[in-house]
Amino acid sequence: MKFAIIGAGRIGQVHARSVSENPDAELTLIYDPDLGAAKLLADKHYAKACDNEDDVFSSDIDAVIVCSPTPLHPDHVRKAVAANKAVLCEKPVAGSIEEAQALCDELKDNPNPVMLGFNRRFDPSFAKVHRMVDEGKIGKLEQLAIISRDPAAPPKEYIRVSGGIFADMTIHDFDMARFFLGEIESVYTIGQNLDPELADTGDFDGAYVLLKNKEGVVASIVNSRHCATGYDQRLEAFGPDGSLVADNKRPTTVQVNTREISAAQDPYLDFFLERYTQAFGNELAAFMKWVETGKVCGPTVEDGVKALILAKAAEESARKGTVITL
Amino acid sequence: MKFAIIGAGRIGQVHARSVSENPDAELTLIYDPDLGAAKLLADKHYAKACDNEDDVFSSDIDAVIVCSPTPLHPDHVRKAVAANKAVLCEKPVAGSIEEAQALCDELKDNPNPVMLGFNRRFDPSFAKVHRMVDEGKIGKLEQLAIISRDPAAPPKEYIRVSGGIFADMTIHDFDMARFFLGEIESVYTIGQNLDPELADTGDFDGAYVLLKNKEGVVASIVNSRHCATGYDQRLEAFGPDGSLVADNKRPTTVQVNTREISAAQDPYLDFFLERYTQAFGNELAAFMKWVETGKVCGPTVEDGVKALILAKAAEESARKGTVITL
Amino acid sequence: MKFAIIGAGRIGQVHARSVSENPDAELTLIYDPDLGAAKLLADKHYAKACDNEDDVFSSDIDAVIVCSPTPLHPDHVRKAVAANKAVLCEKPVAGSIEEAQALCDELKDNPNPVMLGFNRRFDPSFAKVHRMVDEGKIGKLEQLAIISRDPAAPPKEYIRVSGGIFADMTIHDFDMARFFLGEIESVYTIGQNLDPELADTGDFDGAYVLLKNKEGVVASIVNSRHCATGYDQRLEAFGPDGSLVADNKRPTTVQVNTREISAAQDPYLDFFLERYTQAFGNELAAFMKWVETGKVCGPTVEDGVKALILAKAAEESARKGTVITL
Amino acid sequence: MKFAIIGAGRIGQVHARSVSENPDAELTLIYDPDLGAAKLLADKHYAKACDNEDDVFSSDIDAVIVCSPTPLHPDHVRKAVAANKAVLCEKPVAGSIEEAQALCDELKDNPNPVMLGFNRRFDPSFAKVHRMVDEGKIGKLEQLAIISRDPAAPPKEYIRVSGGIFADMTIHDFDMARFFLGEIESVYTIGQNLDPELADTGDFDGAYVLLKNKEGVVASIVNSRHCATGYDQRLEAFGPDGSLVADNKRPTTVQVNTREISAAQDPYLDFFLERYTQAFGNELAAFMKWVETGKVCGPTVEDGVKALILAKAAEESARKGTVITL
Repeated sequence: MKFAIIGAGRIGQVHARSVSENPDAELTLIYDPDLGAAKLLADKHYAKACDNEDDVFSSDIDAVIVCSPTPLHPDHVRKAVAANKAVLCEKPVAGSIEEAQALCDELKDNPNPVMLGFNRRFDPSFAKVHRMVDEGKIGKLEQLAIISRDPAAPPKEYIRVSGGIFADMTIHDFDMARFFLGEIESVYTIGQNLDPELADTGDFDGAYVLLKNKEGVVASIVNSRHCATGYDQRLEAFGPDGSLVADNKRPTTVQVNTREISAAQDPYLDFFLERYTQAFGNELAAFMKWVETGKVCGPTVEDGVKALILAKAAEESARKGTVITL
Repeated sequence: MKFAIIGAGRIGQVHARSVSENPDAELTLIYDPDLGAAKLLADKHYAKACDNEDDVFSSDIDAVIVCSPTPLHPDHVRKAVAANKAVLCEKPVAGSIEEAQALCDELKDNPNPVMLGFNRRFDPSFAKVHRMVDEGKIGKLEQLAIISRDPAAPPKEYIRVSGGIFADMTIHDFDMARFFLGEIESVYTIGQNLDPELADTGDFDGAYVLLKNKEGVVASIVNSRHCATGYDQRLEAFGPDGSLVADNKRPTTVQVNTREISAAQDPYLDFFLERYTQAFGNELAAFMKWVETGKVCGPTVEDGVKALILAKAAEESARKGTVITL
Repeated sequence: MKFAIIGAGRIGQVHARSVSENPDAELTLIYDPDLGAAKLLADKHYAKACDNEDDVFSSDIDAVIVCSPTPLHPDHVRKAVAANKAVLCEKPVAGSIEEAQALCDELKDNPNPVMLGFNRRFDPSFAKVHRMVDEGKIGKLEQLAIISRDPAAPPKEYIRVSGGIFADMTIHDFDMARFFLGEIESVYTIGQNLDPELADTGDFDGAYVLLKNKEGVVASIVNSRHCATGYDQRLEAFGPDGSLVADNKRPTTVQVNTREISAAQDPYLDFFLERYTQAFGNELAAFMKWVETGKVCGPTVEDGVKALILAKAAEESARKGTVITL
Repeated sequence: MKFAIIGAGRIGQVHARSVSENPDAELTLIYDPDLGAAKLLADKHYAKACDNEDDVFSSDIDAVIVCSPTPLHPDHVRKAVAANKAVLCEKPVAGSIEEAQALCDELKDNPNPVMLGFNRRFDPSFAKVHRMVDEGKIGKLEQLAIISRDPAAPPKEYIRVSGGIFADMTIHDFDMARFFLGEIESVYTIGQNLDPELADTGDFDGAYVLLKNKEGVVASIVNSRHCATGYDQRLEAFGPDGSLVADNKRPTTVQVNTREISAAQDPYLDFFLERYTQAFGNELAAFMKWVETGKVCGPTVEDGVKALILAKAAEESARKGTVITL
């Protein structure tokens, strides 16, 4: 399967690596308005570079991975679909719920695969928990706990334009909650301002979210912009017959025993490139399976819209201090 | 220190064992309206038995442990205090917030120790986490997660008269949250009805609670009336410099490795007598220290009142689906 | 069942506690040539004290626990058996193989239970591993690894008269190896002198032992007189269908996560009184079962003799640097 | 740095992947007498293929990775060195100690890097333990335990020509022991025949080895040709100030809790390609550092000779049942 990548930035580089390492995928073309950046990445992977996006859509590639800035996502998806390419689009699907919904509506009858890059669904541990829940290993899911903390806050400049912690960071956790619970009925959020350094960004730097679906299953999400021990990414699913926990990953398996402590392990893997390397690879493989089989194998644009709706509801709940019913 | 125990039921037996095993404590007298029950327990511990409660208050004992039915707690505490005895009273402090508050008010100027039996504060693991938080090991506490699930639901008859899951079961978790966060400002609760067998009790059988103090520190509590793997009692405290986890206890340290799994441990210790054996012993020691030093060494009647207030707020929140501000 | 204890020293106190805490056992009499010591211990447990050992054998007790100094063990066992009492005798069974063997021969036709106090067989974790091996959980046992390190060396004065590390410390591990492997055919030992402080004791302060039974099953033992992290007591059994590990015990279940480490636990429980509290209690229960049922429920005097033989062989192997065939 | 690989078999493919994934390495040429195999591998990595080995030595590559059959290793190393190429040679260095020693002698004054592929030294966990021991984290090393079990025995045909378990499998563990202990003074080995299916191969299918260096530090190695739970690769280093454990790796971090068990993890990663993926990558990086700096950064041909000597001594010890002094 021949791939083009739109956007040679950080996430474009991640996908370029995944494509290169997949024996059934071939990286053919990299587009970036900055031709130098496109070439640098293309050279590394024996691909061609271009700075004219039309070259992407007119080429004989099979699939496009959209890694452009968020506001450009809908347009790039539209053009790729029009050119009859399969699309893997990075999240969030668009800069606003309205634009995301519009794209979603447009694509209603489109037969081409358009998958949204919620990579965490493809993390081997989270995916295994999901599969075991589906197989009924713990009985009917009752309670889900998602822990998601970044190792350190991004620059304040970034936070100010990020759209807020819920759209920027919790969006992954909303998708994870939906992956397990399906449609969410109510949202309650406590936003925290824990780090005095970030006080003037106007954004929260920590959060607790409770989500409930119509069957009464509850998911909790705890977020923080900082975590001393690294990128804290865990999940716990509970049902009548047992529970399943996905723990953090560490660079080694070494355990240290001293006078003061025993069985001390490494800090958590830090940051998402390391933590989710396998997830990105598996995401690509799922996308390719979708393309080959025509059967939906991953999150859709609609999933992207719904995660954005939850982000907005969480923001409103945190600001007003009330429960939001969807 | 000479002890009498009021009530020879299950929790009275627990305290009788703790007193017997404490080298500085002597179990002198057991009172129960059922003299046979009192004698049975007294014989086991080389103590005397009586079925006249006045015998307790007129004896030369130093301290009384009140293990009578909840509605009798306030009266037994009052009489013990009047007789100048130190008192360790089982929770809840009374059958209603009003009675509890009334007792609390009466005791305002009482110099005698009256400690409330929130045993979990004295669990070695929870107590260690609390001490390390106090010592600043993780910086200022930001987020606290309490997991508290019973191995199996009590009989329906019990549930119907229990006062509801929040007063009956979550009460311990409310005290734990207050132990770490101090006074709580807002409560939001989702009550769950997960077990169809319990549907007609009118009570919830699972719950998610979010508590916030005035500094914005958040505690989450997750409850269930059942847990396949045993009595699930955990706690996780998070701050800017790290986090502290108190895990479950198991009967052995054996790990099993087979074709299917590795490092599989025993199910959790089941139930509170086994899980909190050390906690009850340490609770007694703390009480004795309070008696000896005159310095408060454990939860007070006021703590008991405040836990009841949280239980009522949680119930209201779960019933109405709104956030309760205290 | 009524018990007398011979010897009010440290190990006598351990057994006194076990008897007191067992609801079916009654501690009746403590003998010690130092009547004050006997009284002190007796008072604590509501028992009588005596300094004439004949009082023990002529009393109406059912069982005697022999906690006298090692050289007196055979004589006390003999007298107890002659008085028709069941006997639980502390290890080692005697001061020399010859004396131990002589006692063993004498007791050949004695119908009364005489159990030897190899307490580790009754540790819940080790016992569980043994039971699972017996049940065939891992298939036929192939390899056994025993790790056994003391937290710190005893005083040099003690080491000099201890009989050497193999008779003093490894003796427990030899019994454990026999518990799993049965009769041992060959012994190879490397003695280590790791701690310069102990160089002039003439004893080894570390050791590696390999034992093989006639079916070719191998057990390894690693010993050290010191271990910074505490009393290191582990065991790993391996067979064709899996493996079983008994890990160390810790005072709490707290896990610490900081910038430097994650999931760091407490140092190991330290020392044998804490580590093997349950083992001593279970040992007593097994002994009582033996008395009640007449069915052997624990290690015998013969087991004591055989452990001594292995200790002597290990010493010889370490001194000569050769393999010893038994 | 430009690389050629000699041999397109399984291990050649492993190295091809490592070279491809290293941003500073370029895979230029694959040689294999089977040109089809060479081409297949070369195409996958955008390299050229050849079936004339002289093409390798006359090309402008910087380094050769020797992945030919063991008997050809010395010749390929010689030719590469003669052509002034740096060499990374797979183990064992040769088919016999004599040939290995001869090559070692010849290379005495050769300034070009010739590194031997003992990949486990570069496993992140083992390497971290080694580095921490070097840094004095546990004080002076006293005891080292190496556990090394294959998931399942290779075909009998392979075993018959493998040179025996010690040269074929334990060779890695001998190098690991030398990595920590330096030169070994004595070897004692118990060979086991545990699997009746393998009885007629004439080889052992399990082994326990004790190695001692001249300072009295002891390393134990336990081997088995089978392990139900997967590829069992662990290491534990013990010293006066603590101990360090490198545990097995698992495909996910999922922990399963049910009625029967808790915290059950995945079986171990299976087999060496998965377990040691990172080790192979780090091995390559170390080799490249050696080439760039001229400073020895990995095991040498001499290390290969010495591991072979230990394998031979272990075989002799197991056959004769005696201790071998080197």
